[in-house]
Amino acid sequence: MTTWQQYLDENQPRFLEELLDFLRIPSISSLPEHAADVAKAGEWVAARLRKAGVENVRMLQTGGHPVVYGDWLHAPGKPTVMIYGHFDTQPVDPLELWTDPPFQPAVRNGRVYARGAADDKGNMLIPILATEALMQTEGKLPVNVKYFFEGQEEIGSPTLPPFVAEHNDLFACDMVISADGGQWAEDQPGLSVAFKGLCALQINVEGPDRDLHSGMYGGSVPNPIHALVRIIDSMRSPEGKIMVEGFYDDVRPLTADEQAQIERIPFDEEEYKARAGVDGLFGEPGFTTLQRAWARPTLEVNGIWGGFQGAGVKTVLPSKAHAKITCRLVANQNPAHILDLLEAHIAKATPPGVRVTVERSGSTAQPYMMPLDHLGNEAARAVHLKLYGKEPYYVRSGGSIPVCSIFLESLDAYTVNFAFGLNDENVHSPNEFFRLQSFEKGQTAYCMLLHQLEEAA
Amino acid sequence: MTTWQQYLDENQPRFLEELLDFLRIPSISSLPEHAADVAKAGEWVAARLRKAGVENVRMLQTGGHPVVYGDWLHAPGKPTVMIYGHFDTQPVDPLELWTDPPFQPAVRNGRVYARGAADDKGNMLIPILATEALMQTEGKLPVNVKYFFEGQEEIGSPTLPPFVAEHNDLFACDMVISADGGQWAEDQPGLSVAFKGLCALQINVEGPDRDLHSGMYGGSVPNPIHALVRIIDSMRSPEGKIMVEGFYDDVRPLTADEQAQIERIPFDEEEYKARAGVDGLFGEPGFTTLQRAWARPTLEVNGIWGGFQGAGVKTVLPSKAHAKITCRLVANQNPAHILDLLEAHIAKATPPGVRVTVERSGSTAQPYMMPLDHLGNEAARAVHLKLYGKEPYYVRSGGSIPVCSIFLESLDAYTVNFAFGLNDENVHSPNEFFRLQSFEKGQTAYCMLLHQLEEAA
Repeated sequence: MTTWQQYLDENQPRFLEELLDFLRIPSISSLPEHAADVAKAGEWVAARLRKAGVENVRMLQTGGHPVVYGDWLHAPGKPTVMIYGHFDTQPVDPLELWTDPPFQPAVRNGRVYARGAADDKGNMLIPILATEALMQTEGKLPVNVKYFFEGQEEIGSPTLPPFVAEHNDLFACDMVISADGGQWAEDQPGLSVAFKGLCALQINVEGPDRDLHSGMYGGSVPNPIHALVRIIDSMRSPEGKIMVEGFYDDVRPLTADEQAQIERIPFDEEEYKARAGVDGLFGEPGFTTLQRAWARPTLEVNGIWGGFQGAGVKTVLPSKAHAKITCRLVANQNPAHILDLLEAHIAKATPPGVRVTVERSGSTAQPYMMPLDHLGNEAARAVHLKLYGKEPYYVRSGGSIPVCSIFLESLDAYTVNFAFGLNDENVHSPNEFFRLQSFEKGQTAYCMLLHQLEEAA
Repeated sequence: MTTWQQYLDENQPRFLEELLDFLRIPSISSLPEHAADVAKAGEWVAARLRKAGVENVRMLQTGGHPVVYGDWLHAPGKPTVMIYGHFDTQPVDPLELWTDPPFQPAVRNGRVYARGAADDKGNMLIPILATEALMQTEGKLPVNVKYFFEGQEEIGSPTLPPFVAEHNDLFACDMVISADGGQWAEDQPGLSVAFKGLCALQINVEGPDRDLHSGMYGGSVPNPIHALVRIIDSMRSPEGKIMVEGFYDDVRPLTADEQAQIERIPFDEEEYKARAGVDGLFGEPGFTTLQRAWARPTLEVNGIWGGFQGAGVKTVLPSKAHAKITCRLVANQNPAHILDLLEAHIAKATPPGVRVTVERSGSTAQPYMMPLDHLGNEAARAVHLKLYGKEPYYVRSGGSIPVCSIFLESLDAYTVNFAFGLNDENVHSPNEFFRLQSFEKGQTAYCMLLHQLEEAA
């Protein structure tokens, strides 16, 4: 009889071809012109689930991009877990920095390069392939499994909260297993126990009703770009402290034990700088770099634009200027409240003579924390010990996975992070890639995890 | 016998069709992809000069966009004047604010709407049409006339200084008559006696070598947009004073008489605000709005960009940020020296952790002033008295016409401003237009001016 491991080994060439197919769909969730591609990626996932032996597969309408659901519920008395991932991707600009076109995947040196390769198409395909291997070799799954793949993770899953709440019977489970995320290193497992929250807004500054001749009006008519830079510059001190009144008020300070756990984890600041491609770091005074990245809130301008951006010179005093800002939040900050504080700050910092409007983005995420000794964490830890021969680190992330909070709130289920991305894989940047070694190891790990969860029950 | 005025009256429909033809050529000098269109506009001008009876018409290579030259030199003992204008235009963005496509001219309510309608195609065509009228009705011109039309005015005429110097025999003249500019009002003539100078640079800020995930690196890696806004915000005080060390050192203060001349001119601040489309003004403390616009140097950001500018949210810490800045300068500031001061300021204001480079633009212009009682001003004044029944105002401009300084330096010839644009015609902005009434009146005025110059000799 073929074991699931033999099945995985024999089918890797086909699985890789399937991953490349999946990566060719430009499912960028933030760009309206790619909405049909996001739906197409969902259809691809639904078909792939059916092929793996998953039942009741369907596309669910969310009011935003669709969710693909399926289940296999024939393990009475065993736990029910819901596997989570997302089939949407980040945008690709600046396109000129990509070595290969982002949606024409290239396989080189044991890596597949494409937008979405690691975040999250490569990772979310893993549990589907593991399901197929178990079904094909054992004829069943060790536990009850639901599958929940969404198409709006990269825009903060704006329509998921009401959607999950409305379907909480369908999605009811003992825990969620998230196939979105990663391990600490190739040879070191990790268990994520906290994600930052997120809030986002756009500042629009309007001055004259059209671009003006800078010779006729310069020095007398307030320039929206000058106003915008004044507003933005007032938001952070030169050292990196956020100057928005009340911004830190709800931050739960790190306990001595939490600080000790963070300190136990080796953190190579030189390697971090090398990965970021910078010579120097900075940040909020009184904290280490790892504390800032994991446990302190941040504010970054993601983009700015206004006036003339072409080649050469255009001597205009521009009519408008814009900036996009996101904040990463930690427990117990509330995204809506932080947006209130930002709006109040912007209103106060706006110089006379221009009109400022703030557009709040629907892309918000509550900060998330879970108990280290959760049953799912214990099962994952057991797999890690067998596969890596090492205890996992309990790590946090500066990134946001809003669904963790959504599932906790609506389903009363914590989310166990079980994914195989690594930190150098250029997620959200040009030349994103995923290691084929991680792709294979992940399939083995998921087969082991489902068996481990059967024993844990 | 037909008089030149009758000839002008009879031929207006054809002249308007010719203007519309001219305006259809998208001769944007700042955009490399429009270089062939600038050359095409030059060929159009050359053909039109030949048709008007001008001799020795040719395209001259300048190392940049071409100059169109022609002459008629059969008035021995009479002065030689050189008529100047430009056939290039500003860019058109933001395109969505135009009512009509900018290079598909529309005639409505006695106005022609198109990019370049007033600045400067409508104005520069006027003296060519006046030439034709005089040649067709009188068989000759009252004075010797050279014609000099350039294609790089809107980028600051970067290659003209050496070009004019090398051909100073060909261009030798007693004075230049510029068909680029305007009158004070529909019923009030003006004579421009000073233009501001110009210098321009682009600031490029580089941080990480690619866009980074703001969750992984936010708050620790210096953000180039934050660095850029800090640099820009340090350049002007909230009140509008330029904070660049040494910036005002070489400014020749206004004499009491110059101040009185400016005060004699009616200036309606409410109308100025209405024209600018703003509710409030601001500016360097200690000066009136008109003083700021005419006699004080200014610094404006013309454009800014960096990071994500699309729809929705992209949670990046961007790799690069850029801004374009121009300064308008007054006598006796030197553009190259001001650029030195700006570079020194930028270097000093740059926060740690980013790399800043400054690109100086070739688009510079020396500030220009001329004697009020110049022979050409006196001739123009005589025409104004006949046509308008009023003494002209002696006005200054916040705009730059670099060729005035170039001609003064290489040809020892001052430039008399004789053009018919008006302040509300949206030059450099969407929906630029030119009054057909000005177009016709200008043709009459040029015929009169050439006769007046014959008498003045």
